[in-house]
Amino acid sequence: MADLKSTFLKVYDVLKKDLLEDPAFEWSPDSSQWVEKMLDYNVPGGKLNRGLSVVDSLKLLKEGDGLTEDEIFLSSTLGWCIEWLQAYFLVLDDIMDASHTRRGQPCWFRLPKVGMIAVNDGILLRNHIPRMLKKHFRNKDYYVDLLDLFNEVEFQTAHGQMIDLITTLEGEKDLSKYTESLHRRIVQYKTAYYSFYLPVACALLMAGEKLESHIEVQNILVEMGTYFQVQDDYLDCFGDPETIGKIGTDIEDFKCSWLVVKAFQLSNEEQKKLLLENYGKADPGNVAKVKALYHELNLQGVFEEYESKSYEKIITSIEAHPSKAVQAVLKSFLGKIYKRQK
Amino acid sequence: MADLKSTFLKVYDVLKKDLLEDPAFEWSPDSSQWVEKMLDYNVPGGKLNRGLSVVDSLKLLKEGDGLTEDEIFLSSTLGWCIEWLQAYFLVLDDIMDASHTRRGQPCWFRLPKVGMIAVNDGILLRNHIPRMLKKHFRNKDYYVDLLDLFNEVEFQTAHGQMIDLITTLEGEKDLSKYTESLHRRIVQYKTAYYSFYLPVACALLMAGEKLESHIEVQNILVEMGTYFQVQDDYLDCFGDPETIGKIGTDIEDFKCSWLVVKAFQLSNEEQKKLLLENYGKADPGNVAKVKALYHELNLQGVFEEYESKSYEKIITSIEAHPSKAVQAVLKSFLGKIYKRQK
Ligand SMILES: [Mg+2]
Ligand SMILES: [Mg+2]
Ligand SMILES: [Mg+2]
Ligand SMILES: [Mg+2]
Ligand SMILES: [Mg+2]
Ligand SMILES: [Mg+2]
Repeated sequence: MADLKSTFLKVYDVLKKDLLEDPAFEWSPDSSQWVEKMLDYNVPGGKLNRGLSVVDSLKLLKEGDGLTEDEIFLSSTLGWCIEWLQAYFLVLDDIMDASHTRRGQPCWFRLPKVGMIAVNDGILLRNHIPRMLKKHFRNKDYYVDLLDLFNEVEFQTAHGQMIDLITTLEGEKDLSKYTESLHRRIVQYKTAYYSFYLPVACALLMAGEKLESHIEVQNILVEMGTYFQVQDDYLDCFGDPETIGKIGTDIEDFKCSWLVVKAFQLSNEEQKKLLLENYGKADPGNVAKVKALYHELNLQGVFEEYESKSYEKIITSIEAHPSKAVQAVLKSFLGKIYKRQK
Repeated sequence: MADLKSTFLKVYDVLKKDLLEDPAFEWSPDSSQWVEKMLDYNVPGGKLNRGLSVVDSLKLLKEGDGLTEDEIFLSSTLGWCIEWLQAYFLVLDDIMDASHTRRGQPCWFRLPKVGMIAVNDGILLRNHIPRMLKKHFRNKDYYVDLLDLFNEVEFQTAHGQMIDLITTLEGEKDLSKYTESLHRRIVQYKTAYYSFYLPVACALLMAGEKLESHIEVQNILVEMGTYFQVQDDYLDCFGDPETIGKIGTDIEDFKCSWLVVKAFQLSNEEQKKLLLENYGKADPGNVAKVKALYHELNLQGVFEEYESKSYEKIITSIEAHPSKAVQAVLKSFLGKIYKRQK
């Protein structure tokens, strides 16, 4: 695993070097310095789970044949494309959410020299993806499927972000709109497709599969992604900021978080009133009252129950899949996130 | 022409309807309303020159054969993809430039309900393009070339924006960095590829041509795009705000505009000092001093001379092209922008 990660990080250096010499642009020292700094700040500093799992998944799909050097390089490249996609979403998401920290450092747009240039940097990150795909996959017969896949998943993610954002506008007027089904729709689109389906879909394409014949795999991964985002919502409030690398602001930001959905469901009239009065306010006093209510309603226990039920459900679906190799891919993925603390 | 435009606008309605029913996303009334409003506000309100010229160019490339209904629809769709690309750039550019007005109305992000959600709306606009391409071109043998083309041109534009933005940071320390060659590099990337090369490249692909064999066409169009952006810089200061639909802020924003490049070139020491002291300040007094210097240096005359020289040069290159049909395409394009007031 440590070895896999260090090989993976070496591929980052290769890809970065290529991008900084892309012949479609006339580079100057200023511009390569800017892009390099921006990449190093935003791309490789995460957990790299999404990226690594492309390599991991391909290995499992090949069932013990082992990967050639070329396959390792190419699956790592696809893994990095997903990490780039993630970086692009995060850079822009932090601007929209007015966040302060990310991965244990200030958000990119918070750096004094960056500011709103970060919007264009997000765009650059996004634009790097098709350049990497073209350079390394143009001659593959699944090239066009790869392009279509990345385009579709980005489309879904952007729409997930959209409902996240416009729901927050609406929710400010009426907290009862934050239902479980709305929450599920948001997280499925904004997180599950790109974080869970995309890495496995990349590995499937490399393994010569057609994505149309793997709808059930997609369903299971979307379910897993939903569970992952519920964890994210949970950790935003109950996680250790040191460990997760940021200070959660979902309560302040009036987010349609799984916690507030559950809290509203479980509250009596008086508690609902407290929630309505204190949710979505920046003042620490209001935030503390919401957190106290979450404790009172035992949301930690409710979450633990959700977690084990969700795990059971996903394992059952995985074991119903006809291919042992695909089962292994899905179980490996699930193993990485079950009971995660960050 | 009026007829071409009304046909073109009908295609917008078809494309919009398709997008609002895209099966990759689970629509709700809230979300389709948001997207529809956002599209209507940002996409169809421009001059539509870029979009219309795909249809126009294809017609000329076909040399009087006339276009079938299908060809009109498809070339209009590509035209709209370019208009969508433009809308995406403008929505985000206005945020980065902190602009107030665009096309005679407040910038999208200035609407109270929108704000920073506009960042994601820009992303949505960008994501619509591959959906339209997939729906209508997936079975064409130039589909993958179309995807590569849009990706490459977007990459170039984003890098043009980048040097525009980081140059402004640097220029604030040292105005003498604003040279003619830097200005040319900025405008070539941020404007010329997508506004001039892209529409013609789309028409060439539809006409069955390979883009690799049309490097000279690209060069001429990039030259034309450079001339177009010099006009844009000129109109930002000397144009009529009513006619151009916005109030220029290049002076306030410390932009590496063609005007300041020329002014610095033509200034004596004292005038340079005045420029250094007043350029890039929001105060109307400072702006007025810069404008007075522009008049003193007769930049209007300098521009007129640039304009006729540039026109001559472009016409000469066009007439050296072996194909009369291609000549017609390029001349039609040039005719649309020569001596434009908006
Ligand atoms: Mg956020
Ligand atoms: Mg967000
Ligand atoms: Mg979160
Ligand atoms: Mg601007
Ligand atoms: Mg700008
Ligand atoms: Mg301008």
